Amino acid sequence: MHELSIPGLFVTLATMLVAAKLLGELAQRIGQPAVLGELIAGVLLGGSLLGVVPTEGPAGEVVHVFAELGVVLLLFEIGLETDLREMFRTGPASLSVATVGVVLPFLLGFIFWAYAPHAASGDGTDLTTAAIFVGATLTATSVGITARVLSDLKQMHSAEARIIIGAAVVDDVLGLVILTVVSALASGAELAPLGIVRIFAVAIGFLVVAVLVGRFAAPRLFDLVVRMRVRYVLLVFAIAFALGLAALAALAGSALIIGAFAAGLILSGTNQFDTIEREVRPVASIFAPIFFVSVGASVNLDLLDPSREGAAGILGVAAVLTVLAILGKLAAGWAAPWARFRRLVVGVGMIPRGEVGLIFADIGRRSGILNEAVFGAILLMVMATTFVAPPALKALFGSPTAADQ
Amino acid sequence: MHELSIPGLFVTLATMLVAAKLLGELAQRIGQPAVLGELIAGVLLGGSLLGVVPTEGPAGEVVHVFAELGVVLLLFEIGLETDLREMFRTGPASLSVATVGVVLPFLLGFIFWAYAPHAASGDGTDLTTAAIFVGATLTATSVGITARVLSDLKQMHSAEARIIIGAAVVDDVLGLVILTVVSALASGAELAPLGIVRIFAVAIGFLVVAVLVGRFAAPRLFDLVVRMRVRYVLLVFAIAFALGLAALAALAGSALIIGAFAAGLILSGTNQFDTIEREVRPVASIFAPIFFVSVGASVNLDLLDPSREGAAGILGVAAVLTVLAILGKLAAGWAAPWARFRRLVVGVGMIPRGEVGLIFADIGRRSGILNEAVFGAILLMVMATTFVAPPALKALFGSPTAADQ
Repeated sequence: MHELSIPGLFVTLATMLVAAKLLGELAQRIGQPAVLGELIAGVLLGGSLLGVVPTEGPAGEVVHVFAELGVVLLLFEIGLETDLREMFRTGPASLSVATVGVVLPFLLGFIFWAYAPHAASGDGTDLTTAAIFVGATLTATSVGITARVLSDLKQMHSAEARIIIGAAVVDDVLGLVILTVVSALASGAELAPLGIVRIFAVAIGFLVVAVLVGRFAAPRLFDLVVRMRVRYVLLVFAIAFALGLAALAALAGSALIIGAFAAGLILSGTNQFDTIEREVRPVASIFAPIFFVSVGASVNLDLLDPSREGAAGILGVAAVLTVLAILGKLAAGWAAPWARFRRLVVGVGMIPRGEVGLIFADIGRRSGILNEAVFGAILLMVMATTFVAPPALKALFGSPTAADQ
Repeated sequence: MHELSIPGLFVTLATMLVAAKLLGELAQRIGQPAVLGELIAGVLLGGSLLGVVPTEGPAGEVVHVFAELGVVLLLFEIGLETDLREMFRTGPASLSVATVGVVLPFLLGFIFWAYAPHAASGDGTDLTTAAIFVGATLTATSVGITARVLSDLKQMHSAEARIIIGAAVVDDVLGLVILTVVSALASGAELAPLGIVRIFAVAIGFLVVAVLVGRFAAPRLFDLVVRMRVRYVLLVFAIAFALGLAALAALAGSALIIGAFAAGLILSGTNQFDTIEREVRPVASIFAPIFFVSVGASVNLDLLDPSREGAAGILGVAAVLTVLAILGKLAAGWAAPWARFRRLVVGVGMIPRGEVGLIFADIGRRSGILNEAVFGAILLMVMATTFVAPPALKALFGSPTAADQ
């Protein structure tokens, strides 16, 4: 009845998990974030090299579902860790840094792609759509990576860290809205200005209504749930809530991960939020590596072979995108002239793109808007920005002037 | 590329999880084990009533994988909770109780099915194979249910509880060996006595070799793993280990869950076993309900409709199987005449069949050896034995004579 080989699938999942952790560890040992190692594990296990990660048939289907659950639980966790009040408190400075840090890289990426002489987008896709996608991949700061680097450096309570985290969170929300626009484009929606406004309205509207209704109703619901006595009832209800809200967001014309993020924001207001967060983490830790390894596995290494025709172009595009990505975020450090903080530290802290940039690129690749060459270049850019920030931050925070302040 | 609807699948999984917990809670509130409620949740969501649980296509495939992961993680967890030394210490009494409690119900079930005038097995299957399956479903005591009932009654340290838990663990190992024989039968292997001996040898050999090698190597391996710094590295390696050993067992001609149980036994000898157990639990708690709900969903309620032709027969078969299941385990209480304990309490404590009986029945149904009518009757028997033990144990332990001893 089932054509799927369960033992074979188990071996695949076990291999992906172990490889992710081993290369994650290696990355961390040389001072890099673990997610970089997980991506490289995917590159090694992917079709270009070992061919362990299935992309088709029932096994590919199951791995795809696990990867989707991984990204949904990741965003749910980020939502849970987000303090809504803290978000409002860091206020104008964070908002200003975030806005410039989204708009500037987007414009730089869009203009480069739309007007550069060597621009080559996906086959049969109009240039404007592709340019919007490329711009979008440059926008989102990875809250997870930035927060982990700051906590590794024991700088979570510095003035700069507060600004960075606040801005990264706002950035994430803006990024999620951009993601919805970009997803709608990927599914073939037209690029009429009113359509974009409508998509913005749906995404923000969904987020606002869900969070408002949810912050009111969820604490009452979970105060009832916590009175139940069956094992792990809080965790199971929390995950069911995240899956349900993710599905609702998708059905309402928004994106799965907006729903998951909203679910996290909502449940961060419950009295049981500590328990939920503590129990969701191990579950997310099983699914999330499958996502990062899957993304890495989709890289076509042949495109990066320097001896291959066109390879120089891809590497060149990757280099330009990386420079634009870094410049756009660095400039954001100067976006709030009235506030007192070390502008270079904040700018550098905003650089890592991480998971959200990868999600954008992945949607573009799946829908055919970005071809494999561009996808490879974007992946290199994401890896480079993720790679460059931790040592730079370490150097900046390690300097005496920083220690004095 | 993917014909699977992710939002639809998320809604299905969320519904299964919430229904399992709600009916589990209801069951627990009326003094029954939660697993009973999860089975009933499956019956309600299944094809006979609401039709929420998919059985075919990509969604059915994914739910099937989740259910398999659920049972594998459950057996992994039982293995983790099993203390090998405690198993040897309770020694002869537990072994004797377990052996009688496996052999007697098996013989009763086998004889009933092979020689009763109204016996009707799956179409086109020989009677002996079907009788072995029916006998096998009567053998295994549910460690999980029994342990939870004893801990609910705060009797985990009574003499009877030690005998029951020891016997239930031995029982589980014997049951797993029987499962392998039964799985081999289901896949069409011949019933030559030498073949059965070979299967016993492979199953016991795999378990012994895996546990011997594993108990030596795993503590050393995990002492290295724990020195890694990436997030949840212990948990991820432990689960990858369980998946890998489960796959290895299946490929060696044994069963997935024997490998998972062996993995648990092995890792219970590591220095990090506490952390592993604590972190595996939330992950297992997400997958296990999917298994129980799936099993419940496979019940064809029409067969139990009393107004339907043949229904009286099924209900009659269920009643006879339940009586045999209870008598066989009760008698096991008198199996160790030299030891001092309340024989009725031990006999009653061995009654609940729970998950392993369901697994046997499910394999029989999937392979076509047991038809839906027999499967329905066995499911009723499992539910009845699971249902009858908790109130009986409560009554026995609640009596003054029990409190005095």
